[in-house]
Amino acid sequence: MMNITASYTDLYQLTMAQVYFKTKPKGRAVFDYYFRNNPFKGGYAIFAGLEDVLNILETIQFSASDITYLEQHGFEKEFLDYLENFQFTGSIFSCKEGDVVFPNRPILQVEANIIEAQIIETFLLNLLNFQTLIATKAGRIRYSAQDEILLDMGLRRAHATGGYYASRAAYIGGFNSTSNVIAAKDYNIPSSGTMAHSFIQSYGDELKAFRDFAKIRPINCVFLVDTYNTLKSGLPNAIIVAKEMESSGKKLLGVRLDSGDLAYLSKKVRKILDDADLSYVKIIASNQLDEYVIKSLKEQGAPIDIYGVGTNLVTGKPDASLGGVYKLSEYNGEPRIKLSENIEKTSLPSKKQVFRMIDENGMFYGADAIVLYDEEVVTEMIHAYDPTKSLNLTSFLHEPLLEKVMENGKKVSPPRSVQDIAEYTKTRLAQLPEEYKRFQNPHKYKIGLSHKLKQERDILMQKYMF
Amino acid sequence: MMNITASYTDLYQLTMAQVYFKTKPKGRAVFDYYFRNNPFKGGYAIFAGLEDVLNILETIQFSASDITYLEQHGFEKEFLDYLENFQFTGSIFSCKEGDVVFPNRPILQVEANIIEAQIIETFLLNLLNFQTLIATKAGRIRYSAQDEILLDMGLRRAHATGGYYASRAAYIGGFNSTSNVIAAKDYNIPSSGTMAHSFIQSYGDELKAFRDFAKIRPINCVFLVDTYNTLKSGLPNAIIVAKEMESSGKKLLGVRLDSGDLAYLSKKVRKILDDADLSYVKIIASNQLDEYVIKSLKEQGAPIDIYGVGTNLVTGKPDASLGGVYKLSEYNGEPRIKLSENIEKTSLPSKKQVFRMIDENGMFYGADAIVLYDEEVVTEMIHAYDPTKSLNLTSFLHEPLLEKVMENGKKVSPPRSVQDIAEYTKTRLAQLPEEYKRFQNPHKYKIGLSHKLKQERDILMQKYMF
Repeated sequence: MMNITASYTDLYQLTMAQVYFKTKPKGRAVFDYYFRNNPFKGGYAIFAGLEDVLNILETIQFSASDITYLEQHGFEKEFLDYLENFQFTGSIFSCKEGDVVFPNRPILQVEANIIEAQIIETFLLNLLNFQTLIATKAGRIRYSAQDEILLDMGLRRAHATGGYYASRAAYIGGFNSTSNVIAAKDYNIPSSGTMAHSFIQSYGDELKAFRDFAKIRPINCVFLVDTYNTLKSGLPNAIIVAKEMESSGKKLLGVRLDSGDLAYLSKKVRKILDDADLSYVKIIASNQLDEYVIKSLKEQGAPIDIYGVGTNLVTGKPDASLGGVYKLSEYNGEPRIKLSENIEKTSLPSKKQVFRMIDENGMFYGADAIVLYDEEVVTEMIHAYDPTKSLNLTSFLHEPLLEKVMENGKKVSPPRSVQDIAEYTKTRLAQLPEEYKRFQNPHKYKIGLSHKLKQERDILMQKYMF
Repeated sequence: MMNITASYTDLYQLTMAQVYFKTKPKGRAVFDYYFRNNPFKGGYAIFAGLEDVLNILETIQFSASDITYLEQHGFEKEFLDYLENFQFTGSIFSCKEGDVVFPNRPILQVEANIIEAQIIETFLLNLLNFQTLIATKAGRIRYSAQDEILLDMGLRRAHATGGYYASRAAYIGGFNSTSNVIAAKDYNIPSSGTMAHSFIQSYGDELKAFRDFAKIRPINCVFLVDTYNTLKSGLPNAIIVAKEMESSGKKLLGVRLDSGDLAYLSKKVRKILDDADLSYVKIIASNQLDEYVIKSLKEQGAPIDIYGVGTNLVTGKPDASLGGVYKLSEYNGEPRIKLSENIEKTSLPSKKQVFRMIDENGMFYGADAIVLYDEEVVTEMIHAYDPTKSLNLTSFLHEPLLEKVMENGKKVSPPRSVQDIAEYTKTRLAQLPEEYKRFQNPHKYKIGLSHKLKQERDILMQKYMF
């Protein structure tokens, strides 16, 4: 859907790029993508957006109008000639899309000419930060909803065309379908949707509205029952039409509650439907739902079969953003560091690998070890900021997480559908122990460094420290 | 940039549309766009996104792949033939983009065949809700920053491609420039940006990095001074290069602080720069700024000349969404209503006009009166929910706010640039008294109904009430 050119970037990438172009055009850089805090005060995040990023990287270029624009804004002819032929020719090492990931360890690494690595930074952060935020939100809502069906219906409150990617990420995080037609089409996600209040209003007569709808669209038919009054008008009319459908061999799929006390109403409605021998008619609920409201509805025993979630899902409320960063860790083979008065914000140098510790039951033990890229065996990891803390790793299976997914600007692994990715997320969430998934004070997943990596960081910190 | 087809909609618009197509293809509807609460607990919102919506409405259609997709998902041949030739042929009545607007009164009305009005609902809400949210946030940040320069640098944390529209809306709300190249190009917004930490890291040697940058990009040159240590390394190196620039007849524009205590550091840095006879070098500050942080920095007397704002601006934190709705108010010439247990959520029937009360000084008095579209003179407005409250309107100038901006699917007013719109916003904010602009408990702008409109609503409420 989106025509993303290389001008989908910050201007400073291009001002820096021009300086690199004139002073060190062959510089080779490694950048790390990571974030510093789990979204939603949770215990994990779900990494999403990679496949989109790789597809864009394979084809991204500057358009003629991009070049004209930059020419008018003080960029030099020679550099513009370079940009006219710009393409991404670097490598990407990444966790699998859909994996559960944790703060302060590389999720993805870009190894490329520094000009290319810099120009792609903005859109890479833009797509990964947002989709990871939304996939994580969706994962949390899935956790609350247990096995019930979840519909994404947030497009109208999404951040403009960002809604397209929100629907993709929601599916990866565990949603079953989306109202968003263009995303459903392009990503092959199931779509769903039936009627709005305006439909019933346009008739004035609710019963006639339901009848017409059932006649023309009987498959997966859902009546919205709160336009005038749920229990006194919407539900009685829905029951009349459900019975009429039965007599012509059809079945009403459900009724949707979109206002009022959903716990109270769903119980009332369930009872009335059951008493009318309509126990097959499902109850769909919507209206400002999120993981906490759904958890509360479940705890109250609300007999809701399908949850429609909009705003809170697609905007990733309350966080609304994931602060993923992109830090230079190596330049022309030499390790690089960014200092901070806060040691937790000091970056890790060099190209790296991350090993996940798997216990004897195939579950995640709760520790990822960050090592130098060419280290093979690590028997111990050390806490990144507290040298008195270490963890012996000899009893775990070590799963390497960063794989080369792009080389010389071309994907080196087969394309993954959103179905594949969503399935993988499910598997990985199943391997993550419960204590990391709970909402209140989740357990803190351990991140540690190999001795060699720690030593390298400490030397660089000394070198640049004032 | 964005190729938006008519499948940028919710599936239920199409399921409803098919029923309309088969049962009442000629139905003519009026829909109202409005929101129920000001964003950010503020006293107003800035309406943005209209020009984008109108441009899309003029050309929107279903693509061949959209039709194929719908064919595979149970839509009927006859209806698909209709969709293949779909275009928007209705009228739009709207407030001017950039106006200040308030809750619970129409901002825009669509008058069209109900099928068309329904299909366009989703993208219209999607674009107007988001841009209005961000323009309002930008307006608040502008209010705090007073006359200082404001840069939008949020693209990396924006909701994917929604960032494109965020930059547009930020400019309308009062920002001076954006880092977002593609938005700057397409909307003719000033762009800005110089260097990231990675630039300095790639050199390892900060002084050399500044020198190379100044040599190649001396215009609007800004050095980022906190890569290693602001006061001990970044600033001294910046001063050395600023002096070298002077000796070749050039001037350093500024230094950027991106971490630490910005109030403390900016004062220190200002003093050191002034003592080095570099009082022309500006101080740019960034790092999780918003309207409250900037207000506090100003109150502390921080000598910051330019503020770079990212995440909090482009994601519209903490709200992250504006709950604008689209309600059917008239069908085939008959008024329509949506009831709610909460009278404040009951919709207003019929096609309407809104008059803004202007006092003798040209300032907004603080009251918008909603009237039936053909009412000409109203001497009094009544509170929408409290019939004991009314306001005499005879002493005010009545400014009609809704203008016909589209007829038969074609724009009837000349295109407006974002510069025009931003200028208009500035004028309108200047007409809005201070008490509506303050952050703490802003004054509540009055919304009232004409007697005729209230009567019509009350009759319909009686008719549908249970």
